[in-house]
Amino acid sequence: MLKRYLPVLSWLPHYNRRLLGADVLAGVIVTAMVIPQSLAYALLAGLPAVVGLYASLLPAVLYALLGTSRTLAVGPVAIIALMTGAALSNVATPGSAAYLQAALVLSLLSGAMLVAMGLLRLGFFANFLSHPVIAGFLASSAVLIAISQAAHLAGISAGGYTALTLLTSLAEQLHRLHWPTLAIGLGTLLFLVASRRYGQPLLITLGLAAPTAGLVARSGPVLAVVATTLLSWQLGLEERGVAVVGAIPGGLPPLTLPELDLGLWRALLMPALLISVVGFVESISMAQMLAAKRRQRISPNQELVGLGGANLAAAVTGGMPVTGGLSRTVINDEAGARTPFAGLFAALGIGLVTLLFTPLLYHLPIATLAATITVAILTLVDIPLIRQTWRYSRSDFSAMAATILLTLTEGVEAGIISGVVLSIGLFLYRTSRPHSAVVGRIPGTEHFRSIQRHEVETLGHVAFLRIDESLYFANARYLEDTVMQIVARYPGLEHVVLICSAVNLIDASALESLEAINERLKEAGVTLHLAEVKGPVMDRLKRSDFLDDLTGRVFLSTFAAWQAFKPSTA
Amino acid sequence: MLKRYLPVLSWLPHYNRRLLGADVLAGVIVTAMVIPQSLAYALLAGLPAVVGLYASLLPAVLYALLGTSRTLAVGPVAIIALMTGAALSNVATPGSAAYLQAALVLSLLSGAMLVAMGLLRLGFFANFLSHPVIAGFLASSAVLIAISQAAHLAGISAGGYTALTLLTSLAEQLHRLHWPTLAIGLGTLLFLVASRRYGQPLLITLGLAAPTAGLVARSGPVLAVVATTLLSWQLGLEERGVAVVGAIPGGLPPLTLPELDLGLWRALLMPALLISVVGFVESISMAQMLAAKRRQRISPNQELVGLGGANLAAAVTGGMPVTGGLSRTVINDEAGARTPFAGLFAALGIGLVTLLFTPLLYHLPIATLAATITVAILTLVDIPLIRQTWRYSRSDFSAMAATILLTLTEGVEAGIISGVVLSIGLFLYRTSRPHSAVVGRIPGTEHFRSIQRHEVETLGHVAFLRIDESLYFANARYLEDTVMQIVARYPGLEHVVLICSAVNLIDASALESLEAINERLKEAGVTLHLAEVKGPVMDRLKRSDFLDDLTGRVFLSTFAAWQAFKPSTA
Repeated sequence: MLKRYLPVLSWLPHYNRRLLGADVLAGVIVTAMVIPQSLAYALLAGLPAVVGLYASLLPAVLYALLGTSRTLAVGPVAIIALMTGAALSNVATPGSAAYLQAALVLSLLSGAMLVAMGLLRLGFFANFLSHPVIAGFLASSAVLIAISQAAHLAGISAGGYTALTLLTSLAEQLHRLHWPTLAIGLGTLLFLVASRRYGQPLLITLGLAAPTAGLVARSGPVLAVVATTLLSWQLGLEERGVAVVGAIPGGLPPLTLPELDLGLWRALLMPALLISVVGFVESISMAQMLAAKRRQRISPNQELVGLGGANLAAAVTGGMPVTGGLSRTVINDEAGARTPFAGLFAALGIGLVTLLFTPLLYHLPIATLAATITVAILTLVDIPLIRQTWRYSRSDFSAMAATILLTLTEGVEAGIISGVVLSIGLFLYRTSRPHSAVVGRIPGTEHFRSIQRHEVETLGHVAFLRIDESLYFANARYLEDTVMQIVARYPGLEHVVLICSAVNLIDASALESLEAINERLKEAGVTLHLAEVKGPVMDRLKRSDFLDDLTGRVFLSTFAAWQAFKPSTA
Repeated sequence: MLKRYLPVLSWLPHYNRRLLGADVLAGVIVTAMVIPQSLAYALLAGLPAVVGLYASLLPAVLYALLGTSRTLAVGPVAIIALMTGAALSNVATPGSAAYLQAALVLSLLSGAMLVAMGLLRLGFFANFLSHPVIAGFLASSAVLIAISQAAHLAGISAGGYTALTLLTSLAEQLHRLHWPTLAIGLGTLLFLVASRRYGQPLLITLGLAAPTAGLVARSGPVLAVVATTLLSWQLGLEERGVAVVGAIPGGLPPLTLPELDLGLWRALLMPALLISVVGFVESISMAQMLAAKRRQRISPNQELVGLGGANLAAAVTGGMPVTGGLSRTVINDEAGARTPFAGLFAALGIGLVTLLFTPLLYHLPIATLAATITVAILTLVDIPLIRQTWRYSRSDFSAMAATILLTLTEGVEAGIISGVVLSIGLFLYRTSRPHSAVVGRIPGTEHFRSIQRHEVETLGHVAFLRIDESLYFANARYLEDTVMQIVARYPGLEHVVLICSAVNLIDASALESLEAINERLKEAGVTLHLAEVKGPVMDRLKRSDFLDDLTGRVFLSTFAAWQAFKPSTA
């Protein structure tokens, strides 16, 4: 019981020196890698850079204790930072104290929702985000982020959270373009793209083992940060107008208490829900992929609790909404992390830097961070997947397209909400007009197939109708129409057999429709039968009066019905 | 083509004197019966009584030309009047000119939406209202209406559109209770209940034919109106403080043009949508019931156009939102109407009254109208249906209960929206955790059944898994879990066969999950096969790369897979 709610207890007793060694090494590597990321994502959300560091400390510790994934790394991530910025800019001015306060409230609400969803076992909620909607949302968010970072690369700053506002503010300020900044930004960008694409093969030809080469190639951002910081310091770039990170307050994160302002809470409720769900989806996808690779198990509901705990921790230590991040988790995993202790060590490392070494980050150019984000984020635009969705299903594609379009034009919230509504609506629409087929017997067998697709035997006075869908409110009326049309089409009809092999559910609306069909067929002198009703469906029908009112019988199989109605061959 | 959009053309050429006679008679009867109703529903919506008459004129004519039902009678109805009142009181003060204006805008928006939904063939939209939600909504609306009418019965007036506001305003004004009014109200109420329950049997024993007796018994409200109006006039009840209808402006309805006030339009958009959908559901249910009885056909999309036309007509002739009414249609049908001309004649009759005889209605007590509404409306509370839903399905019942509760406490809009959201959510939840069964072969047959429910043969190295649900985004993740759990449970497993006989759809999310399952099974050394994939599903799979990547085969039947894997008996 205790183990279920504190997963740390299930692996801690087996901890040993070998695991410790691996975890400490991973912790050191992750520390170096995620500091620039964390600063960058805080800036992306419109918050001071140090907030990104704070959000990488206690939240990571909480997840290490409560989460079920062994190597998931929790902290600020790009998409959540974008959503945070969009939500906060609706309720406060970036840079103001109210904006910082709102970030805490958003973390608190999001954390509380995640914990509540976990305790209420509502992890299935995340399933309402279909894969095409997620893919569309990630791709268009990445484009939004890339546009906002393009401004930083050029030494100007574009405001807003839709493509239109970003592009217009970019265009308006284009005359302020700052050439030295652009040089650093573009230089870093090219270096990062090159090291990502050619780094590993190059290092392997230079004699490094493949895994080590991969890790070194991934440290490109760290190299870029160190190099451009040194350059900026040596050349005094700040005086020449290049934006740098500047003074970061040293010391441990402050203890903070989110304000109890009901109006603010209400305004942030919906954004917090969306951030929770999107963050959970990103995190659980990563965690499940890693667990499958290592044959471990993830508990989705406990993951909700773990991520919720992390966000609550962010709320009380001056942080921002966090989740299990794609890139930081990959780094952690490839650095050889074996248990959540790796996360603890990384938190320790980042804590040490926050406490003592923030002055080292003073000269780090913002353009370097922008280049880092841009390269990381554009991997989220998965063109082949978009193309494949188009080919496979126009309906899924339309939900994806709507998500992309509305995220770009109206912002992240409108995009994801319309994607969800549209995919649910399209699913209901598809099931509201179920495929059905009048079937006949394949001669000499007990099998029945559509009379339109196959050469089959039929009986003139019996219609065998197979319904290929669960019967529920959205298609109840359609079922009535379908049956009555068949009766109108075959004048000599005496029996209708509904084959229910694909009917997994009959809800109360469909039950009423079945009663209506039974009644209307009775008036027309036609008997209604059922066949192949599944166990659970039958159990439920027995709780109603329908089986008593049914004019015909319930056959175990279509073949049994066939034998009952076929003219005696004697 | 023209016939499709002007259904009147399909029956007009066959019109004859016999039909004319029946229609004229029905028109006269309906005129007498629906005038009190129309006045009462206008008052219910907080509008002047005459608006109810206006809304029974041109709208009925438009529906007669555009609608596909032969005997549906269109005009103001109780539920729509309640919803209209609730919507209007949010944007204007009852009794003000702005309130009247808003009623026109609401009719216009509702009419435009209905026409648009009809032309876009969106009639299926109404299917999203499940029967339990509709039943719950009707029952709780009826209770709200009954409470508001109870006030009129007692000679006081209760304001508000939720149970709480109605009851508190009723309690606050209870000291103003007016005994003469209460006497008339209760007297009428008892007379109506008695004539409804005992009228027809009594008249039959008195020697009338059953149909005539039914019609006469239904004319109870007309008798009550005539009797109490005469009483009120003779005794001068108005001077004694009994509220009466009073002066109704005579003459034809004014030509009105709804105001172009964008703020108002936006505020009324959601109410108009709900009124359209609820009105359409009430109307189409009546129309389909009648059509089935007479073996005629209804076109749902053309019905939308017909009702939309009626509401647009209401908007330009000083009316209020209308739809096909339950009670007025039953009266029309039982009075012997044969074609939409009956509706035209009734409109003519009501027009005549509006033009010349409104002074006759001056002394009609409001309490009489309240009693009429109360008796009519309480038939909408269908307790047996509520009980049956509880027995049949807790999930459907919970949607119904939420609708009832929220309609009573938060009002009609909150009630119906939460009902729809909840029934869709519950359906998705049910399908998100699909029933599945590991099956084995019934010895000696080609049939396969659950190994938990039946005595069946199994093969140690092959798992046959039947999935009883379409595979889509809401259950994609669950499918992965189910398959991997089975693999973990049977250590010697070499093959997994997914039996897809109940899978009617595989969307893009589920396709990705299948690809992931295939990949993960491959890593575990297990081959994945499919069996009994339906034609349309297979066609779609062929458009993806999945079948190329699939480690195993696609079998036509489960038995074919069984034969391929069973140890050779030789």
